[in-house]
Amino acid sequence: MRRSLVTSVMALLVWGTAAFAADLLPSWNDGSSKRAVVDFVTRVTTPGGRDFVPQPERIAVFDNDGTLWAEQPMYFQAFFIFDRIKALAPQHPEWKDKEPFASVLKGDVKSALAGGEYALVEMAMATHAGTTTEEFDTIVKDWLATARHPTTKRPYTEMVYQPMLELLAYLRANGFKTFIVSGGGIEFMRPWTEKIYGIPPEQVVGSSIETKFELRDGKPVLVRLPEMNFIDDGAGKPVGIQMHIGRRPVAAFGNSDGDLQMLQWTAAGAGARFCLYVHHTDAAREWAYDRQSSIGRLDKGLDEAKAKGWTVVDMKSDWKVVYR
Amino acid sequence: MRRSLVTSVMALLVWGTAAFAADLLPSWNDGSSKRAVVDFVTRVTTPGGRDFVPQPERIAVFDNDGTLWAEQPMYFQAFFIFDRIKALAPQHPEWKDKEPFASVLKGDVKSALAGGEYALVEMAMATHAGTTTEEFDTIVKDWLATARHPTTKRPYTEMVYQPMLELLAYLRANGFKTFIVSGGGIEFMRPWTEKIYGIPPEQVVGSSIETKFELRDGKPVLVRLPEMNFIDDGAGKPVGIQMHIGRRPVAAFGNSDGDLQMLQWTAAGAGARFCLYVHHTDAAREWAYDRQSSIGRLDKGLDEAKAKGWTVVDMKSDWKVVYR
Repeated sequence: MRRSLVTSVMALLVWGTAAFAADLLPSWNDGSSKRAVVDFVTRVTTPGGRDFVPQPERIAVFDNDGTLWAEQPMYFQAFFIFDRIKALAPQHPEWKDKEPFASVLKGDVKSALAGGEYALVEMAMATHAGTTTEEFDTIVKDWLATARHPTTKRPYTEMVYQPMLELLAYLRANGFKTFIVSGGGIEFMRPWTEKIYGIPPEQVVGSSIETKFELRDGKPVLVRLPEMNFIDDGAGKPVGIQMHIGRRPVAAFGNSDGDLQMLQWTAAGAGARFCLYVHHTDAAREWAYDRQSSIGRLDKGLDEAKAKGWTVVDMKSDWKVVYR
Repeated sequence: MRRSLVTSVMALLVWGTAAFAADLLPSWNDGSSKRAVVDFVTRVTTPGGRDFVPQPERIAVFDNDGTLWAEQPMYFQAFFIFDRIKALAPQHPEWKDKEPFASVLKGDVKSALAGGEYALVEMAMATHAGTTTEEFDTIVKDWLATARHPTTKRPYTEMVYQPMLELLAYLRANGFKTFIVSGGGIEFMRPWTEKIYGIPPEQVVGSSIETKFELRDGKPVLVRLPEMNFIDDGAGKPVGIQMHIGRRPVAAFGNSDGDLQMLQWTAAGAGARFCLYVHHTDAAREWAYDRQSSIGRLDKGLDEAKAKGWTVVDMKSDWKVVYR
């Protein structure tokens, strides 16, 4: 009898909590993923509870590519890089005979990327440096206003995940401070993350090139240089978190092996922690990929998530809609 | 008649504003410095006014050494470094015969610092690296709990400026987000800035050494390495601001030539901007120094402040009290 009473009360509590969350997470199907999120948030925000976390320590970190917006058939920033190469080509006649630029100008993406990460970094440098920070901000905004995804034909900023937008807002409504921690370029994200995600520039962590302060005719500018400063991916993510945030997150959200160390770092803190992987399982509405993908590979991370009981979102069954 | 009416109304408005501010800035004498601060805050927070700044863009940056707390007879972090050298000496028998460590161990600060910045960086590396980030956090907190300033005999965290604490709170009450942008070590400041200044770790920008993510027996740690990552001083300050904050401040507060580029960068933005130098003029209650000082030299900055009409706080006449 006592046991069934306890069970009933607990069921009522869980039901009550879930009902409240349903308002804020309408694009999430009821299921274990949604329940895990709501249970965690309820625990850390319940005053006097053993898992209570004071508001200033409610730090939540989100990967961007594949976690907040799509990343197929390649990172959206790569499309930006290719478009910039085309736009800058008149000023660089030598690119016609120089790889990987020549392939990009011929529209041969596959050959352009044959050089792997080195080629991509080379192209990123050539297209991301040489301007002031303010000029670059304008270039990114102008590009996003007109560029369209090759398959969906939609603006890239419409290919953000509605359930994740709701999750960001739900966490903030519960006193969390939400950060992006992405392998993407920090200054490629900042021009639009506040408007699209509600995440201000000072809460964006990403990869970066060096910048240099100069007085040009007495006017101070920050010039972007063709030298890597920081790569915010893999083991770099906890380093970037410490550098920018300076305390360990209590919740971390990713979708690939490049997020694994961020999730490990988060999970290893004392007290309640929450780690979640978005698993791309929906070939009809988005893309289905994991262990074999060259973009956003989720292999070791999937094993570790299962071993450690982290939440794995099944995009196909957990999400009512995908894009906003 | 009309003119005198307008004047009277304006006087009333100014009086009304100042009276309000007086509640929040009780340690500031009425005068041009206080008036300049209050006028600026009133202008940028008045909806519909031509200088109105939306709340998310109200970024205010503060130098730390000499601006929020004292910095004489040398930077407080240098005292920390010397104490660490003494604490670590048993593990480093070679230091007895190696400069600058040998001089520190003999209590000869002057000789220890004879090597200039190079010697200081060398000592900083030797004492700031080799631990995990969490161990270092504890070391700093433990040191602050017991260390005393050689002259005042007070804990260092009591040598923060009461008028600046009020200014921080006044800005935050008006929707500003307050950041520290200091040449000091970022991880030397973070353990205490939230408690003392109300500035959380994620709003602290400073100099840093490299860190590395490692799994130690399966437990993730961030290890501090003896390599400089970033020097957040002089022309580095606008770079640090862009890296961490990603938008230009509307208000900047400093006390030395090392803050000049930060103030220039702030002042050069479009719209209303506010730049303020704390001028150390009070040999009785604190210290008096500017153009000739090796610590916190204010020379070029003082000229530029006068030329550009920035606010220069005369510590002796503007502040009713100095320390909290």
